[in-house]
Amino acid sequence: MEQEKTTEKLLELYKNRRFADLRMLLLDMESADIAAFAEEELDEKERLFFFRLLPKELASDVFVEFDSDTQEELIKAFTDKELKAVIDDMFLDDTVDIIDEMPANVVKRILLAADPDERKTINELLEYPDDSAGSLMTPEFVSLSANMTVSDAFDKIRRTGVNKETIYTCYVTDIRKRLIGVVTVKDLLLADKETLIEDIMTTNPVSIETLEDKEDVALKFQKYAYLALPVIDKEGCIVGIITVDDAVDVLQEEATEDIQIMAAITPDDKPYLKTSPFKIWLNRAPWLLILMVSATFTGLILNTYESALSALGAGTLLIACVPMLMDSGGNAGSQASVTVTRGIALGELKFKDIFRVQWKELRVGVLLALTLGAACFAKLLLIDNLLFGYSGYTAEVAFVISLCLAITVVLAKFVGCSLPLLAKKCKLDPAVMASPFITTIVDALSLILFCNVAIALLG
Amino acid sequence: MEQEKTTEKLLELYKNRRFADLRMLLLDMESADIAAFAEEELDEKERLFFFRLLPKELASDVFVEFDSDTQEELIKAFTDKELKAVIDDMFLDDTVDIIDEMPANVVKRILLAADPDERKTINELLEYPDDSAGSLMTPEFVSLSANMTVSDAFDKIRRTGVNKETIYTCYVTDIRKRLIGVVTVKDLLLADKETLIEDIMTTNPVSIETLEDKEDVALKFQKYAYLALPVIDKEGCIVGIITVDDAVDVLQEEATEDIQIMAAITPDDKPYLKTSPFKIWLNRAPWLLILMVSATFTGLILNTYESALSALGAGTLLIACVPMLMDSGGNAGSQASVTVTRGIALGELKFKDIFRVQWKELRVGVLLALTLGAACFAKLLLIDNLLFGYSGYTAEVAFVISLCLAITVVLAKFVGCSLPLLAKKCKLDPAVMASPFITTIVDALSLILFCNVAIALLG
Repeated sequence: MEQEKTTEKLLELYKNRRFADLRMLLLDMESADIAAFAEEELDEKERLFFFRLLPKELASDVFVEFDSDTQEELIKAFTDKELKAVIDDMFLDDTVDIIDEMPANVVKRILLAADPDERKTINELLEYPDDSAGSLMTPEFVSLSANMTVSDAFDKIRRTGVNKETIYTCYVTDIRKRLIGVVTVKDLLLADKETLIEDIMTTNPVSIETLEDKEDVALKFQKYAYLALPVIDKEGCIVGIITVDDAVDVLQEEATEDIQIMAAITPDDKPYLKTSPFKIWLNRAPWLLILMVSATFTGLILNTYESALSALGAGTLLIACVPMLMDSGGNAGSQASVTVTRGIALGELKFKDIFRVQWKELRVGVLLALTLGAACFAKLLLIDNLLFGYSGYTAEVAFVISLCLAITVVLAKFVGCSLPLLAKKCKLDPAVMASPFITTIVDALSLILFCNVAIALLG
Repeated sequence: MEQEKTTEKLLELYKNRRFADLRMLLLDMESADIAAFAEEELDEKERLFFFRLLPKELASDVFVEFDSDTQEELIKAFTDKELKAVIDDMFLDDTVDIIDEMPANVVKRILLAADPDERKTINELLEYPDDSAGSLMTPEFVSLSANMTVSDAFDKIRRTGVNKETIYTCYVTDIRKRLIGVVTVKDLLLADKETLIEDIMTTNPVSIETLEDKEDVALKFQKYAYLALPVIDKEGCIVGIITVDDAVDVLQEEATEDIQIMAAITPDDKPYLKTSPFKIWLNRAPWLLILMVSATFTGLILNTYESALSALGAGTLLIACVPMLMDSGGNAGSQASVTVTRGIALGELKFKDIFRVQWKELRVGVLLALTLGAACFAKLLLIDNLLFGYSGYTAEVAFVISLCLAITVVLAKFVGCSLPLLAKKCKLDPAVMASPFITTIVDALSLILFCNVAIALLG
């Protein structure tokens, strides 16, 4: 509600060219909201004009909040001087994130606009793989030495802090830049001015290696509730820090990615409304095609056994149960695989837990098999037979169907809990195993089982 | 690797009763890791003994990290004095979180152990609904007044900061405790000592209302990248703050919950390995039963049309295509509904976007329908007919099947993208709509469509 009012007010000031008032209002706003306003309410030309109106201290903060299409559009329209001003004011990790999304000619312009020193650092940061801690970090942190006093430390923070991504955690290094401790501004504030840093720093701080998977990094933030974590290279030297806001973004992106994969969609981190129908089609079509082809196999299996089943007394009744059997198996398998996949993503489950997981799922599977089997048996005999008058469901037929359902459930749970852990062990994405594939595998297994059991027991 | 070594070392020191060395090692460890060690490696009796060995300053930090079963077990074994020491050292939001999970008699002991003032605040905090901002907040923050100087502010922080959950953001209030601004320790450090707070504070700060949904709160943290946000009541008075670590937990819990619901599981935030098979059974069985019953409807529909379909020339071939049709429809629908559900959870999609979403899904649906329809047509005629020699698939039959597949896909996309938004509008959980139910609805729709189209065109 309030946001809509602000939007109206901004539009009104903009349309009436009351730019001084507009600036005043903008100074009181969050950069994320300003960026959203410019993207949603203004066209390309207006946006450039509006961006040039922004108070200088806000410009790069707002720029960072734009999505990459808008950023590209603006960079192409910027003069060299404008581009330099924006780049100079940004944190290096943000610059690197933007570069990652830009076409080559834009990247060239950005690098030319940066200072030589910055350019060197940017190029180093660009070398880290996309999914590594190195790609998230920024080298802009406060470093202290162990023999400084608290008041020296405050002097250094005051002198250099403006351009650091966080000043609240400071990193204590030796002369070879090796990380030897961590001290927070809280520690500093609560200590006496003449105290030496080495007396109040935390030694053996939690740290991250440059090539660590960024998902593991994000989980460390959740586990230890830190605001920032240091990144060290193989020699133990600190090369950068990662701040909690980047970790939050990673957690959200990874959850979205897992959810997309579980729903058989190629992951895409662009917001839905900004993705073109063609791109959405591209992310979805291959999976639907694969699953369509795999579903035909189930059809083939059904076809193969159809005549044999039909020859049995209750043939057509048996076939009518196939969707229920396959669906229940698929659902039971998905429950197990999705649970285990999420457990892996949260860092709760590792490959070494596979036997504990299987043993647990086996017990759950048996409980569920008894429940579903009994329910199915009762339903076939009481409801279908008595209410709907399908007189073909004898106790024997109902028993065979319920037995197959029970076995399918146990099997589905076992396969469903094992595959994601095996996938993780083989360095594949567990989420791929979590939903559509489990269903396909369990469908085929349950159908073969059902046909064979029915023919053996009722034939 | 390193963690395993630490565990071994801890166990060795503990077993050899070298408690002084054990304490030294513990002082260098993270409380989350200490808690994990005590839970995984020690039994109940050892755990109590081990907890009593912990250096006093670590005890409540470690206690907070335990899961609620362990907390309950320890509280029951504590003396009143021990309990009081732990409770006094905890932040109030943590105390409230623990109380939420305890049985009534344990709650009573905790409340008795707290100071009268604290008890009053705890009782107030317990009043807030579980999913509200109020349930996440802590009243332990630093408040300043506008006419203080920077050096006054530092004095106040030094005096009161030890027991505050964060000191890095301070809240400026008027005499009636209304929030009028925010100032960070960074602002304070970079300002001159004699500057007045009102000259450097940010007015109009982003804030949260006590009854705001905690999911929205978490999204605000992600959007604005804050370390803490103030919570205000209806009069605009600040009643507490929420810190980013709690927001991170909410984001993870909400994602897990959505994933569980999409996989037809009653949400449960207990770690998998700590949930009993019976509880897992309880979370899964009702959904499987509902889905099993609904799958029978599909079987009934199939049964109703079976004789009519069989009477057609290509009857059994048509029936063999049913699993493929139903699966493709279900998958296409899930893709749309899961995407939209995640968009809602990320705050990107609102009910007002429904027409934009439908229009986008309609276009995606048509593209996918053309792709899948063409692929299906080619597959039936070329592969099934020529390779497998199912001579029954004439061009006419293949066309009818492909046409139905195409219509099903468009329909599934449309229903799939609309239901989560409608659910949200009706204050239901969009995730419930996202997967199993969509599949059931689309299954029934596609089957009825298929049978009618086939009978009309081929009959």
